[in-house]
Formats: sequence, structure tokens, C-alpha cells
Amino acid sequence: MEKELKKAILDVPDFPKKGIIFKDLTPVFKDKKVFKKLIDTLGKRYKSKKITAVVCVEARGFLLGAPLAYKLGAALVPVRKPGKLPGQTFKQEYALEYGTDALEIHRDAVGKGDRVLILDDVLATGGTAGAVTKLVEKCGAKVTELAFVIELDSLKGREKVKPHKVFSMVHY
Amino acid sequence: MEKELKKAILDVPDFPKKGIIFKDLTPVFKDKKVFKKLIDTLGKRYKSKKITAVVCVEARGFLLGAPLAYKLGAALVPVRKPGKLPGQTFKQEYALEYGTDALEIHRDAVGKGDRVLILDDVLATGGTAGAVTKLVEKCGAKVTELAFVIELDSLKGREKVKPHKVFSMVHY
Repeated sequence: MEKELKKAILDVPDFPKKGIIFKDLTPVFKDKKVFKKLIDTLGKRYKSKKITAVVCVEARGFLLGAPLAYKLGAALVPVRKPGKLPGQTFKQEYALEYGTDALEIHRDAVGKGDRVLILDDVLATGGTAGAVTKLVEKCGAKVTELAFVIELDSLKGREKVKPHKVFSMVHY
Repeated sequence: MEKELKKAILDVPDFPKKGIIFKDLTPVFKDKKVFKKLIDTLGKRYKSKKITAVVCVEARGFLLGAPLAYKLGAALVPVRKPGKLPGQTFKQEYALEYGTDALEIHRDAVGKGDRVLILDDVLATGGTAGAVTKLVEKCGAKVTELAFVIELDSLKGREKVKPHKVFSMVHY
């Protein structure tokens, strides 16, 4: 799977800003065989871990979390930018290179007894991943694992979510 | 299916602004049985229509389009707000109540020979739906149908995408 993913993932230089090489997953989503195998691979891994809810982050994380939740027969829980979720939420700020950003989850989205998989496209510095982990824990649920298609190893994002387990399909 | 959906969909008054009753689908995504049945119902309908690509709109549309593309074994194509897609794009503006907004698609996302399903959560005034239809056609692909979980009949959105077919699971 790693070989097929690396072949499909596109390097886009200077996006979204100069000096950054963006890892574009749209060719993965467009290739129905690679996309299916990606979801099936995650499905196989998490079937045995008895995941009850897949929590995924706006917007690219939705493209991965929704089919995996469907495959697993688990609840699908969106984490969104502030002001987008209509119900009562928990909010978590996290640091960016300059300034801060924040994410929200519905307070009743997950709870005690839930075994949560957090799924996103890329693990970079771990700011988002750390915030989502805190949101799930604020709801009283257990984070069973965090999964990513891509992990940028040099940025050490997995240190931000210790002691939780991290699974990444492709490393750069 | 309509009865289960109407039971799960939550009315949120005055969101995102005063006077609007927002139809919240998060309880549908959270209920693994209703969510599964929703995707299976769409899957059954579109299996026979030989859909090759599911085009869905950031962000809530991703939660529906991704699992349906997976189910159908079709390509998954995201339409996004300007500046979010890293490759060469087509851009389409559309009118809002005050001012305009725009959406983008990768130029090579779909093409000649593709049979496209456009999928989104809500058909309201049809501004977004009309723009996405134009984007798919700019790429040279055929729009086979547009599907929505919810259609707000009084806003007459389906007139904006004539002569294309529209399928909505729940009407208000």
C-alpha cells in the first residue's frame, strides 16, 4: 500500500506558500482503486480494535473519516473550525507558527464508553492532532489511536499526542 | 428512509444567523445505523446509473460524497473554496444574498467519458449546486444527476440546475 500511495501522492512546491512542499492527496481520491485500498487497509486495522467512533477534522479529514466510519459501522464525528457546528461545543485552541487557531466538537458527539479513532490526512507539527485529542477527552471518551495517511517525521508531531498510539501509512 | 432521516435531523433555530432554521445533519452521521442506511440507499440508486465520479462540496458534502464514492467504487472529487486546491483549477462564481462567492475544481478531476454525480447535504437556493454543475461541465464531463439529503422546496433550487435531474431524500 505504501508504494501505491507514494506513487499517487503529488508534491506541489510552494503551496500554500513559498518554501512549503504540499503533499496533495487528490490523486489518491481520484484513483478509485488506490482510494478503495486505502480505506480497506484502515478498515482491516481498526475492525479488530473495536472503534465506536471515527473523529475527523475539517475539511480534508472528512474525505477519509467518512468512508472509514461507514466501513467500520462506527459513528462519524466531525471536528470543525469555530462557529461551524450548530450545537453546544467544546473548543480547543492550538499554536500555529504565528498566532493560534481553534477547533470545536459537539459536546455530545462522543462520550464514556466510546473507543475513538482520530483520523486526518497529514501529521505535521501535531498542533491539530493534539487539539483533537484534547477535544475527545473533554467529551469523556477514550482515544484508542490516531491515524494519518502521511506523517512528516522530521516535524515530530507524534510527540504532541503522547502517550497515545499513532499509525501512519506513509512517512516522509 | 425518509422517516428515519426526519427523526434524526435536528432543527437549530437562528443558526448561523437570526431567522434561519438550520437543518443539522450531525445526528445522522453520529447514528451508525441511519448513516449506513443513508449511504446504502444512495449506493443502490447510483449503482445502476454507472456513476464514474462523485463530486462533492467542502465541507459537509465531503461527509456524504466520500463514503458514497467508496461504496460505488467511483472517483472521489472535492470541490473547494478558492485557494484550497493546489493544482490547476476552474473557478466559478455564484450569487449569495449579498455579494458573491466562488468554488474551484481541479481541471483534470473529471473529463470526457465521466458520468458524474454531484452530491451535497442541502439544496436551498441552488447557488452552490448551479456553480458545481458548471464546474463539472467546464471539465468536459457529463452531470448524470444531483443528489441531496435535504431539499428546501420553497427556495426552488432545482430550477437553477435545469435541465439536470435532482434527487432529494427528504423535503421540507
